[in-house]
Amino acid sequence: MLSKRQSKYFKSLQLKKYRQAEGKFLVEGAKGVEEVLKSDWEVEALLATSEYLKTLDKGLFRKKFDLFEVKENDLLQVGTFKSNSTGLAVVKMPEQSLNANWEEEMVLALDQVNDPGNLGTIVRIADWYGIKQIVCSRDTTDVFSPKVINATMGSFTRVKVHYTDLRSFLSECERHVYGALLDGQSIYQTKLQHGVILMGSESHGISEELRPLVTHSIKIPGRGGAESLNVAVATAVVLDNFARNI
Amino acid sequence: MLSKRQSKYFKSLQLKKYRQAEGKFLVEGAKGVEEVLKSDWEVEALLATSEYLKTLDKGLFRKKFDLFEVKENDLLQVGTFKSNSTGLAVVKMPEQSLNANWEEEMVLALDQVNDPGNLGTIVRIADWYGIKQIVCSRDTTDVFSPKVINATMGSFTRVKVHYTDLRSFLSECERHVYGALLDGQSIYQTKLQHGVILMGSESHGISEELRPLVTHSIKIPGRGGAESLNVAVATAVVLDNFARNI
Repeated sequence: MLSKRQSKYFKSLQLKKYRQAEGKFLVEGAKGVEEVLKSDWEVEALLATSEYLKTLDKGLFRKKFDLFEVKENDLLQVGTFKSNSTGLAVVKMPEQSLNANWEEEMVLALDQVNDPGNLGTIVRIADWYGIKQIVCSRDTTDVFSPKVINATMGSFTRVKVHYTDLRSFLSECERHVYGALLDGQSIYQTKLQHGVILMGSESHGISEELRPLVTHSIKIPGRGGAESLNVAVATAVVLDNFARNI
Repeated sequence: MLSKRQSKYFKSLQLKKYRQAEGKFLVEGAKGVEEVLKSDWEVEALLATSEYLKTLDKGLFRKKFDLFEVKENDLLQVGTFKSNSTGLAVVKMPEQSLNANWEEEMVLALDQVNDPGNLGTIVRIADWYGIKQIVCSRDTTDVFSPKVINATMGSFTRVKVHYTDLRSFLSECERHVYGALLDGQSIYQTKLQHGVILMGSESHGISEELRPLVTHSIKIPGRGGAESLNVAVATAVVLDNFARNI
């Protein structure tokens, strides 16, 4: 059972200011809950229906956390889903700094990606292609919002998302910076090497101030009438082209 | 000005049964409205704010249609957007049969794609890669629903979406059928030729009854922890691999 006070406290984590104040966020649904229990992330509480608890592997209870057996209604009260007969975890935000060896890995950089669904899908795509770190401009949407976390389908546990001043980051980095631009060179004809892949926002692409920092501008050749691809879709196609070459 | 009756009639087209009875559907927002006015699709009515009308090129008024100068509130009443200061078109559904020469073109086939956002994004991706025809199983979500049409960003005017019995279609077609399956052969190592590309549903992939009809099973190699890619994202990656090879 949840007290009103607990329910209100958990629900408050839907909002960025409370997430930042508490350093915690919500993970909803079976896939996300199981991924976070398996990961080394610190879980403060698990809210779960009794039916769902029965299905969970005992190995997932090695972590210490508060367990609340609840009704579906409690889950809907606290979370954002329209239906949820499984569970919801309250998780501590980890430090999302870059790995020390980030200069040896492919890094994805995002400039002002605003849509939570897009950011979550991009985290899942990055995870698919083995990218472990994403660097975001400070005005990119918050990775710990429920919509983003839920769209990652659990991939948030394997991909670090780090917010910083992208201009300084790209200026100081001495690596190739591949920028997706509509007037770039065909990605099929570009020699693709390790480096940073920069993707711009849904409506404006890569911002003016970052364009001079792109060392290789690339584009996905189109043959039809569509003006552009969605940023998550474009990210997948770009990462796939790197994956087949590196 | 719109009468209550007109408003109610237009709004009813949000629902499939009224779309089918009337043979009409809604297109919301500037991008979709302008694409449909430019196309050879028959437009029954345009609802637009006076501010938006001023911005429209005169060439777009060559078609015959009823014009309603309306307030934003009328657009919200009739349509599904949370804000819309531009316009909304009521459009006649065309015949969506396959082109006679479909056997000479790349065709995309979709098996039980349920999510309207996914279908709309797939239509936009198909348009980007110059695919002109999509064949869907009868239980694929309706392409004329507002969510699908809006997610296509106008690409619905250039890509035919045809619903049929996919099993008969694939049985009778004498072409290569490339099916995206998690245990397929790496798409990087597969010889990709003209044919049909079959993508399965979000939750179950290609259905059991269609799998024997796949002549080449392909997969997108992953390197990380994510179990799968979203179906729209996977469609884009597959089409990109074909585009660079054909």
